[in-house]
Amino acid sequence: MIKVSIVGTGNLSHHLIQSISKAEGIGVLEVISSRIRSFKEILAPTRQDHGVQKHEFPDIYILTVSDDAIASVSEIFKKTKRLVVHTSGSVPMDSLPKEIRKGVFYPLQTFSKKTKVDFKEVPLCIEAENNEDLHLLRKLAEKLSNNVIEVSTEKRARLHLAAVFVNNFTNHLYEIGAEICKDQDLPFSLLEPLIVETANKIKNLSPLEAQTGPARRNDLATIRSHMELLEDSDRKEIYSQLSKSIRKTYGKKL
Amino acid sequence: MIKVSIVGTGNLSHHLIQSISKAEGIGVLEVISSRIRSFKEILAPTRQDHGVQKHEFPDIYILTVSDDAIASVSEIFKKTKRLVVHTSGSVPMDSLPKEIRKGVFYPLQTFSKKTKVDFKEVPLCIEAENNEDLHLLRKLAEKLSNNVIEVSTEKRARLHLAAVFVNNFTNHLYEIGAEICKDQDLPFSLLEPLIVETANKIKNLSPLEAQTGPARRNDLATIRSHMELLEDSDRKEIYSQLSKSIRKTYGKKL
Repeated sequence: MIKVSIVGTGNLSHHLIQSISKAEGIGVLEVISSRIRSFKEILAPTRQDHGVQKHEFPDIYILTVSDDAIASVSEIFKKTKRLVVHTSGSVPMDSLPKEIRKGVFYPLQTFSKKTKVDFKEVPLCIEAENNEDLHLLRKLAEKLSNNVIEVSTEKRARLHLAAVFVNNFTNHLYEIGAEICKDQDLPFSLLEPLIVETANKIKNLSPLEAQTGPARRNDLATIRSHMELLEDSDRKEIYSQLSKSIRKTYGKKL
Repeated sequence: MIKVSIVGTGNLSHHLIQSISKAEGIGVLEVISSRIRSFKEILAPTRQDHGVQKHEFPDIYILTVSDDAIASVSEIFKKTKRLVVHTSGSVPMDSLPKEIRKGVFYPLQTFSKKTKVDFKEVPLCIEAENNEDLHLLRKLAEKLSNNVIEVSTEKRARLHLAAVFVNNFTNHLYEIGAEICKDQDLPFSLLEPLIVETANKIKNLSPLEAQTGPARRNDLATIRSHMELLEDSDRKEIYSQLSKSIRKTYGKKL
């Protein structure tokens, strides 16, 4: 039985608790507020040990706090002998205090309270300072997901960067699409099947093969008329920049 | 029974034929090559009419040819008395010859031969010059999809522009993500669950609510370190431009 305590009560914490409750051989000992100020505040549950009440500690502390809180919150765990991992894509493992057994447990997914996520499908990127801790972390991760991979701090930073492109920036393109619909009194839901199909397509085709559209076929007339329809200068810039990049990709590769 | 003839044999033609074969009260009379040069080449099937063989013509010709072929191909149908519609998002209805009964039947979806599409969910944007033809087109469209909407040429152009943002440009962001993974010897499939979830999220949340990431929370340190990781100047530009636009959206709205 692997026992974990989770620090933080946000979206990831919520989904992690749900997922652990369904998994076997793993349990949540405690959920600790991210506003914790000292280790003494942790009300570790007690257990009987030869008639003596003893505090019970987890095998792993999982910090689900925000990136900028990782350094300060992890300081509090400086004296524990347990493994402490953070869950951030962009924060180096070494930003955890040098005194502790440290690691990273980065779920490559976007979490919000309103949507259900199948944790079994979430890629879990793990990293630890030594083999023993990596082994423990892998054991934990494999109980939760079918997709566990060891990723170094350097590679994780780049993976996180790729995630920003396909998640954050993509969502902003959806937002631009929604604004264009709104300006025309058309429901944004019209774009929904297209958005979902665009995402699903990459299960069968690489993005390089799946690319279509005016820039892909170098259709300068349509590009020009789209540029005229766009009034906002930022949107014009985005349209022009992305079209240029697509044309370059296919000019180069085909 | 509505009879249609489909001009063109590409992806849309393929999916349209599949969908019509499953629908009731509608049938494909003929599939005509987009390389047709004159109306005489159309081998309209014959039927017996009081002992005389007569050619049978459809109620609607649906042109699924590429945007730049619409003008020339539709010329061939100048003398027909049947309704002729094109299927393009960006071509005005009036680019069809003035002599004919004309309309537009624009399915707002991306089609490829490898992937199945549930036509019932595809938004069909229809337009026609007169009410009678619009009625006929609506009857046809409603047999194929649960999502039929009348959209003028002007609005359709903007809807197509929105589609370029959420489909073509999004796919290019996937491509950038794939390249970053490749550079790190990481499988692109790691990003797949995130890509699919990002798309599915907008069923429950507006893109404005769903936005996360460094630019959304104005995390300049992460933005700076991402900019340093990007070596390619086009990608740098795209990152910077989209981040600026996200920051502006939330600086303005919140």
